[in-house]
Amino acid sequence: MNDTVTLAHGAGGKQTAELISRVFKEHFNNPYFTADDASVLPAPTGKIAMTTDGFIVSPAFFPGGNIGKLSVCGTVNDLTCMGAKPLYMTCAFVIEEGFAMADLEKIAAAMEETAKEVGVVIVAGDTKVAGRGQVDGCFITTTGVGQVMDGIQTSGRFAAPGDAVIVTGDIGRHGTAILLARDEYGIEADVKTDCAPLWNPIHALLTEVPDVHVIRDATRGGVGTVLYEIAKEAGVGIAIEREKIPVTEGVLGVTGMLGLEPLYLACEGTMVVFVPMEHAQKAIDVLRQQAHTHGAAVIGQVQAENKGRVIIQTQLGARTFLPEPGNELLPRIC
Amino acid sequence: MNDTVTLAHGAGGKQTAELISRVFKEHFNNPYFTADDASVLPAPTGKIAMTTDGFIVSPAFFPGGNIGKLSVCGTVNDLTCMGAKPLYMTCAFVIEEGFAMADLEKIAAAMEETAKEVGVVIVAGDTKVAGRGQVDGCFITTTGVGQVMDGIQTSGRFAAPGDAVIVTGDIGRHGTAILLARDEYGIEADVKTDCAPLWNPIHALLTEVPDVHVIRDATRGGVGTVLYEIAKEAGVGIAIEREKIPVTEGVLGVTGMLGLEPLYLACEGTMVVFVPMEHAQKAIDVLRQQAHTHGAAVIGQVQAENKGRVIIQTQLGARTFLPEPGNELLPRIC
Repeated sequence: MNDTVTLAHGAGGKQTAELISRVFKEHFNNPYFTADDASVLPAPTGKIAMTTDGFIVSPAFFPGGNIGKLSVCGTVNDLTCMGAKPLYMTCAFVIEEGFAMADLEKIAAAMEETAKEVGVVIVAGDTKVAGRGQVDGCFITTTGVGQVMDGIQTSGRFAAPGDAVIVTGDIGRHGTAILLARDEYGIEADVKTDCAPLWNPIHALLTEVPDVHVIRDATRGGVGTVLYEIAKEAGVGIAIEREKIPVTEGVLGVTGMLGLEPLYLACEGTMVVFVPMEHAQKAIDVLRQQAHTHGAAVIGQVQAENKGRVIIQTQLGARTFLPEPGNELLPRIC
Repeated sequence: MNDTVTLAHGAGGKQTAELISRVFKEHFNNPYFTADDASVLPAPTGKIAMTTDGFIVSPAFFPGGNIGKLSVCGTVNDLTCMGAKPLYMTCAFVIEEGFAMADLEKIAAAMEETAKEVGVVIVAGDTKVAGRGQVDGCFITTTGVGQVMDGIQTSGRFAAPGDAVIVTGDIGRHGTAILLARDEYGIEADVKTDCAPLWNPIHALLTEVPDVHVIRDATRGGVGTVLYEIAKEAGVGIAIEREKIPVTEGVLGVTGMLGLEPLYLACEGTMVVFVPMEHAQKAIDVLRQQAHTHGAAVIGQVQAENKGRVIIQTQLGARTFLPEPGNELLPRIC
């Protein structure tokens, strides 16, 4: 097979079949993989969740992950937020002519490994190849279908005064890692993405802790943007405390140098969870025992006042509105 | 709102919310549209079909359609091929900074109209904006879930000697329309894409004609490529007759001038259907009564000899192997 992807690999003929069989079948093989136009699958029962996400991150490889791992985590985590066990996934690639076949292999291998961790099956795919300059490297769109756990209903609308606001780990690592990987600032720091699939820890949480109100992935726009969204959807105020927000030294150092707010930097393996305050300690205990969520912490609570706003209390005790996110958020991270 | 799409529209903050609410909600609104990470939907029963397709066609607007219509038809038709009623769809956009908002509106409107024709609901979406030059215009990835009709099982593997080979309409129009829209050859001809959603006619076919073996969308690579795929999957030969293949005068003229084979030009609203010869007339009668499939015709039959090959009989009665498709197929059409 060629060392790089050619236009012929995307034309639907012999070379496309070869690419699918040598790269994608190799990594995604399962009983549902088919040469027909769609996969035929056993239907889930009850309620399903469905979501889609496009990934155009540049660079495609970064410390702690690559666009393949990211594309599976993103969709797995979106399903997870609805309390849905990820069952089936599809992936559609748009690849630039000349993209290294070895890199495509690494991307597919990362997708395979991440999908296996949560037991989701990649049931269908699509490959298009765009001419040089028509697309920057490799874009991946993943779509997932999951089965919602019996009796579980989560939504930003369910945030209620008295809820504890929990983050499942330290924040801002993915955004910082991408920023450093771009090498535009000449900063060297050891920051790896937090990119991880969170179905297993959240499944444990939902099994052991009753009455979880909100689970939301803090990706584009970070924790700050997500909290603003929830505050507006539920018509509540959200008060958080700066000193309780877990941030690694690496992220603190980089964001300090560049004057960035970690609350607006993307996470790809860190979620925001709202539970009634009386269940907060149990939730933290459960999460801290699971892979990817050892660093879970309560960072604040929901209040009836200041509807639609996020209030932050500084280390010195001053309380201020967190500025509302808007305009272009840097860096592009997914 | 701005006249063009900006990077801020893809950053996940205020402007993204504005774009979603003014363009996408406007056209895709339905009870399942949500601000949460995934849509929660009633599960289908029995068997589901799932498929995904990326669309990077250039230009995005062409005679008879645009990339939005195409992206819904592609996924609807893939589900249709498995005898699955299209239920839920997602769409993920990657848009180049500077793309005209008015064009995005037209694309969304076409998606809405096409989805309505078959009753499929767009339940989730994603929007990313790439910098100028990182992507060419607008890419759309659609994914669909459908419910397979009770008792229906179709596959390329089921092609059997004695089957009639039917096309649901004239061939090669989409590929020709895109080719002309590129304006690289200076040819003027009145050829419109055949792009259409075929669930309704195929549903009628499957309801009224027993024992349909194969339904396959003749998109990338056209009817010729699809017939080769089926011949290999089922281990049969497929004999077709040139004079029975419906091709419009416009397509014949253009392909004649450029030396192209209509059998290798893409269709986006024309399928290949295999039924036992005794049901062929009934199938043709049913299809000809339906929108989009008035031009259905039997073009050949399956035979036990020449396994894995496609044989074509010319107007003069000569029989020859259809050359096997490979390499880059022109033009890129989806």
